[in-house]
Amino acid sequence: MPAPAFNPVIADLSLPPVPAVQAWARDYSGALGPLIDLSQAVPGYPPPADLLRWLGEAAGSPAGAGYGPIEGDLALRQAYAAHVSALYRAELGADSIHITAGCNQAFVAAVLAVAGPGDTVLVTNPFYFNHETTLKMLGIGVDTVNCPAERGFLPDPKAIASALRPGVRALALVSPNNPTGAVYPADLLAEIFELCLRHSVWLILDETYRDFLPPGSAAPHALFSLPDWKQGLIELYSFSKSYCIPGHRVGAITAGAALVGQVAKIMDNLQICAPRPPQMALTRAIPGLADWRAANTNEIEDRATALRKTMAGLTGWEIGAVGAYFAYIRHPLAAGSTAVAEALAKRAGILTIPGEFFGRRQEQYLRFAFANAGAATIRDLRARLEGFGL
Amino acid sequence: MPAPAFNPVIADLSLPPVPAVQAWARDYSGALGPLIDLSQAVPGYPPPADLLRWLGEAAGSPAGAGYGPIEGDLALRQAYAAHVSALYRAELGADSIHITAGCNQAFVAAVLAVAGPGDTVLVTNPFYFNHETTLKMLGIGVDTVNCPAERGFLPDPKAIASALRPGVRALALVSPNNPTGAVYPADLLAEIFELCLRHSVWLILDETYRDFLPPGSAAPHALFSLPDWKQGLIELYSFSKSYCIPGHRVGAITAGAALVGQVAKIMDNLQICAPRPPQMALTRAIPGLADWRAANTNEIEDRATALRKTMAGLTGWEIGAVGAYFAYIRHPLAAGSTAVAEALAKRAGILTIPGEFFGRRQEQYLRFAFANAGAATIRDLRARLEGFGL
Repeated sequence: MPAPAFNPVIADLSLPPVPAVQAWARDYSGALGPLIDLSQAVPGYPPPADLLRWLGEAAGSPAGAGYGPIEGDLALRQAYAAHVSALYRAELGADSIHITAGCNQAFVAAVLAVAGPGDTVLVTNPFYFNHETTLKMLGIGVDTVNCPAERGFLPDPKAIASALRPGVRALALVSPNNPTGAVYPADLLAEIFELCLRHSVWLILDETYRDFLPPGSAAPHALFSLPDWKQGLIELYSFSKSYCIPGHRVGAITAGAALVGQVAKIMDNLQICAPRPPQMALTRAIPGLADWRAANTNEIEDRATALRKTMAGLTGWEIGAVGAYFAYIRHPLAAGSTAVAEALAKRAGILTIPGEFFGRRQEQYLRFAFANAGAATIRDLRARLEGFGL
Repeated sequence: MPAPAFNPVIADLSLPPVPAVQAWARDYSGALGPLIDLSQAVPGYPPPADLLRWLGEAAGSPAGAGYGPIEGDLALRQAYAAHVSALYRAELGADSIHITAGCNQAFVAAVLAVAGPGDTVLVTNPFYFNHETTLKMLGIGVDTVNCPAERGFLPDPKAIASALRPGVRALALVSPNNPTGAVYPADLLAEIFELCLRHSVWLILDETYRDFLPPGSAAPHALFSLPDWKQGLIELYSFSKSYCIPGHRVGAITAGAALVGQVAKIMDNLQICAPRPPQMALTRAIPGLADWRAANTNEIEDRATALRKTMAGLTGWEIGAVGAYFAYIRHPLAAGSTAVAEALAKRAGILTIPGEFFGRRQEQYLRFAFANAGAATIRDLRARLEGFGL
């Protein structure tokens, strides 16, 4: 008999993109200076000292070692619900919050709650690659809506409307977008949500990067104030990036209590509950680090400004879109984005993720996680990109 | 249009059992003394002080706050591979180890690696309830092999052979068993594994409770020494119970490197990587706490002895099986196990999980997680169970 086989869907899945890209960097000689890593989104500053202390205290306590509620620690759900309520000028209670082990898990749980094998979930093109592989992994069909450069990488509601065919159970959007950085305007989101409701389709809105919007930004959208938001909205968030603690794995789902109840059944199977110590620390951090988070938005704005100036001085290179954490950069070379990104990593010490990893017809684009690097480092990109050729 | 709908498979899933059982306890008056919680497996002693210190140090460090490799920290994979090699007298390398966020997640990832919608995975009856709900959640068919009381709750290899029909991709076993406590003999496991290979079927062996076997036990099995083990074996483990840190969420998959590579693609989608700080602490704890773990096996043996004595003195109550962490107790009442467990919780302050939560024809059984409670508490069960009626 042949050896037991793998699940063919998993066997066919592409390898995780971030390690593949990181492998290129090992071939960089260092000739042009230290590696500039704009690949995986990892803020280039450490977590605040207060948060590290709270994390250490919680992890060192017997209380943090025990199981917690599946839905998350009640104190964290309350603190986060209050934070979300203030940010969106809406009224949400703890029963609308489910804590997860990061935002990728939030997406897995959200998708499973509304779609199964044979159903279809609509994503954008380009998409966040883990959204596509998650859907494939679960046997859920994937269909895409184009977000062309000429529309600022935003989808046309008409294109969404025609893609909302029978069998589509949800539309997944990311704003501020990964990979492009495009920030979806509040009125566009309102229009899309109405469209979704009209077609009995869930809107899954991943807002992992919302805390990196420029200082003084208005609320990202007003969906949480709509009377029927709980009927069709599932919003996702990550504490990893905002608090610089991706290694602790905490994210959140905001949705109606009925959806939260479905997610609890899924989370119990996935891993009983999110890790407890960072939940305890974040309960203190949400109110306690408001000033620190605000200061970060200034820092990120400085980095975005540095990127705009750097790219403006470069012949042939263009910013396709920029916002919050990412910029989507149009390169001037004749080769595809994978070849360009590999060469940039190996020869220029600039690590980016090729557009081709995010969907079809992205040969001309590279994702720069510009918020990873300080303004001085971003200015250093110019000397490395000027005249770069294959 | 109707509101967007839930995934019907998830909507039909039973509610998480542990919170349902815990809710009964809130009606207990305390009249017979403090609640005796034998429901969810949670050792009734704290994590060791050294481990809490290591956890606190790791969680308080900037290094612990960053992403790690998807497969787990290399140092932990090496330390755990060395531990597994010594325990099973086999030679395993770090490339055979994938770290997960707990053993439920290890099961999700293992199952997805080998089965998809339309395939079937065989479990025992009774089964660990999250195994069944995980398979249903993923659209994978579930078939069962009976483990009758008269066989000591062990499966008959002939029954397995006839259940290994086309479409079955894996057989999932738990030893020491949850819920029954039955410990699968090494030669039975060898026979079953050979059967699986002969049918091109994976054996997924969950050994969450192996560290609670009596002091001086032989290796649980010799499967890791077989020349073809990597062709068909996926072994699962949990650090939660052995180190009393379920709140930190760390488990492990041991399998061939090719299977580990498939799991990495799944884990990247599920949550990028397991939480980092407990991985760092466990790297120190595996070698550092060997004596502490050994002392625990003595303590658990004392508890098992106390349980045997307690139950022997009770008219009508019987131990169906006992081993490692759990005992499967036959109650003498005419009612089903759910009614009995509810009444025991509310009126006698004894929290157990009814056999009916674990499969068909389990009306007469209750799962006692006896290792949760000290020997003195276990002796207190007698007064509460003696003469208990509905």
